[in-house]
Amino acid sequence: MFEARLRVIYGDTDQMGVVYYANYLRFFEAARAEFIRSRGLTYRDFEAAGSFLPVVDAQITYKLPCRYDDLLLVQTEVSELRRASLTFRYAIRKEGDAAVRTTGHTVHACVGTDGKPTRIPDSLRQLIEPKAP
Amino acid sequence: MFEARLRVIYGDTDQMGVVYYANYLRFFEAARAEFIRSRGLTYRDFEAAGSFLPVVDAQITYKLPCRYDDLLLVQTEVSELRRASLTFRYAIRKEGDAAVRTTGHTVHACVGTDGKPTRIPDSLRQLIEPKAP
Amino acid sequence: MFEARLRVIYGDTDQMGVVYYANYLRFFEAARAEFIRSRGLTYRDFEAAGSFLPVVDAQITYKLPCRYDDLLLVQTEVSELRRASLTFRYAIRKEGDAAVRTTGHTVHACVGTDGKPTRIPDSLRQLIEPKAP
Amino acid sequence: MFEARLRVIYGDTDQMGVVYYANYLRFFEAARAEFIRSRGLTYRDFEAAGSFLPVVDAQITYKLPCRYDDLLLVQTEVSELRRASLTFRYAIRKEGDAAVRTTGHTVHACVGTDGKPTRIPDSLRQLIEPKAP
Repeated sequence: MFEARLRVIYGDTDQMGVVYYANYLRFFEAARAEFIRSRGLTYRDFEAAGSFLPVVDAQITYKLPCRYDDLLLVQTEVSELRRASLTFRYAIRKEGDAAVRTTGHTVHACVGTDGKPTRIPDSLRQLIEPKAP
Repeated sequence: MFEARLRVIYGDTDQMGVVYYANYLRFFEAARAEFIRSRGLTYRDFEAAGSFLPVVDAQITYKLPCRYDDLLLVQTEVSELRRASLTFRYAIRKEGDAAVRTTGHTVHACVGTDGKPTRIPDSLRQLIEPKAP
Repeated sequence: MFEARLRVIYGDTDQMGVVYYANYLRFFEAARAEFIRSRGLTYRDFEAAGSFLPVVDAQITYKLPCRYDDLLLVQTEVSELRRASLTFRYAIRKEGDAAVRTTGHTVHACVGTDGKPTRIPDSLRQLIEPKAP
Repeated sequence: MFEARLRVIYGDTDQMGVVYYANYLRFFEAARAEFIRSRGLTYRDFEAAGSFLPVVDAQITYKLPCRYDDLLLVQTEVSELRRASLTFRYAIRKEGDAAVRTTGHTVHACVGTDGKPTRIPDSLRQLIEPKAP
C-alpha cells in the first residue's frame, strides 16, 4: 500500500501538545496527492485536463495522538471506485511504531469544469484501480 | 438551537474559490466553544477545572460550498450525552440562504488530567443536557 | 481607530500554549476586511469591480503571547496611502488589558485583473484615506 | 546553504490560486527545523533540554507567487547569532526556476523553561554558527 511521509511542525499542533484535529485532513490531502503522483499522474495535471475531485464526505477516527516532530507514515489507498465517485482510505502511523494512530476516509465526486458530476476519466481510473490480490 | 456566526476569510479558502475542507473543523470548534459559552461556561474554565473533551471521531458532509466573505451560521447542538462521552452535531448555512451547506458531528471523550476517561462533570452536564421538547 | 474583535480558538494555538506565529497574519487579514467593511465597502465587492490588493510585504513583532479563548482587539488603520499601494498597520490587545501584545503591518500593491499595478480606485481611496486630525 | 524541500498542497492556497500569505511562515518553520536537523540536532531535543526559541519578529517579502503542487526549495541560514537571540533568513525558489519568489527572516529569543532570556546553549551555538567563508 502506498505510504506518504510527513513531518509534524509546530504549526500543526495545538495547546494540548498534539496535532490539531483539523490538520489530519491536510495530511490526508498531501497523502492522496502523493499517491496519485506515485501512479504517474499529478492531481494538478488531472485538473488541467478538466476534471476535479471535490470532497463530498470526510471521516476521521482519532485513536492515538501525533506530536511535534513525529515523522508520520500515511498509508493511502482507493477503497472504492465507482462511475463518478471514489473513496480514499487512510491510516496514520509514526515511524518506528506499529500502532495505528488515526484512520479516516474521504469520498470524492468527479466533476467537470461546469461543476456537474461526470464519469471518472479512464486516464485516472486505470492508474488508481484497486489491484486484484 | 444555538447558532454561531463566523465570517469566511481569504485564509479559509483554497484555489477552487471555496472554503478548504479541513477548515470546517475549525468552524465546528469555534461554534461549540460559543455554544458552551452561551450556556454560561467557557471551555477554558472547564479545562482549568481538570477535565478535557478531546475529539475521538469527526465526520463532515459537504453539500454546497461556502465562499470568501460569506457570513456563516453554524447551528450546534449536543445530539448525544453519555456517561463519559458526548456528540456535537453541526449544520452550516449562510446568512440569508436557507440551504444547508455543510453538516457534521464530532464525538468527544471526557478525560481527566491523567488522560484517562472520566465521567462528564455535572457542572457541564447540566448546562448542555439536550432539552426535552 | 477601527478595532476588530476576534476570539482565539484551539486551532490558532500551538503546543507552547500560545497563538502560533503565522496565525497573526490571519488575524490581520480578518481585521483589515472588517476595517474596509466598516467604511461601507467589502473587499469582495472591491475585487468584483476588478481590483485586488495582494500583500507584497508583511512584518510582525511579537511582544506578548495571546492564548486560547482570549478575545483579541485588533486595531487597524491605513498608515500610508500611495498611488498604487497602501500600508495597513495593526496593534493587538486583549480585552480588559491595555498591553499591546502584537504589532505589525502589511503593504499591499493595487493590481488589476491583468495582475499589473494600477492606481487605487477612488471608490476605495476616499473611504480609507487617513483622516486629518 | 541549507535547502529544505516542500510541496504546496491545496490547503496552502487561497482563492487567488496562490499560497496564502500566512503559510510562508509555516514553510519557514518547517525549513528551520530541517536546517537544525541537518546539523545533527532536533528542535524537539533542544526544547527537551530546557531551551526555547520563540519568534519575536518576522518579516516576509512576497516577490512572486507560489502555486499548488509547486516543489519549493527553501534556502535557510543563520544570518545573525547573538548572545541570547538569533536570526534565520530564508529565500524560496521553486524547483527548476532560479527566480527568488519569497524572502524573509525570523528573529528568535532564547528563553529557558521560566520564559526568561538566556544565553544560547553551546550545544546549539556550535552547530549553527555561520561558517567563515
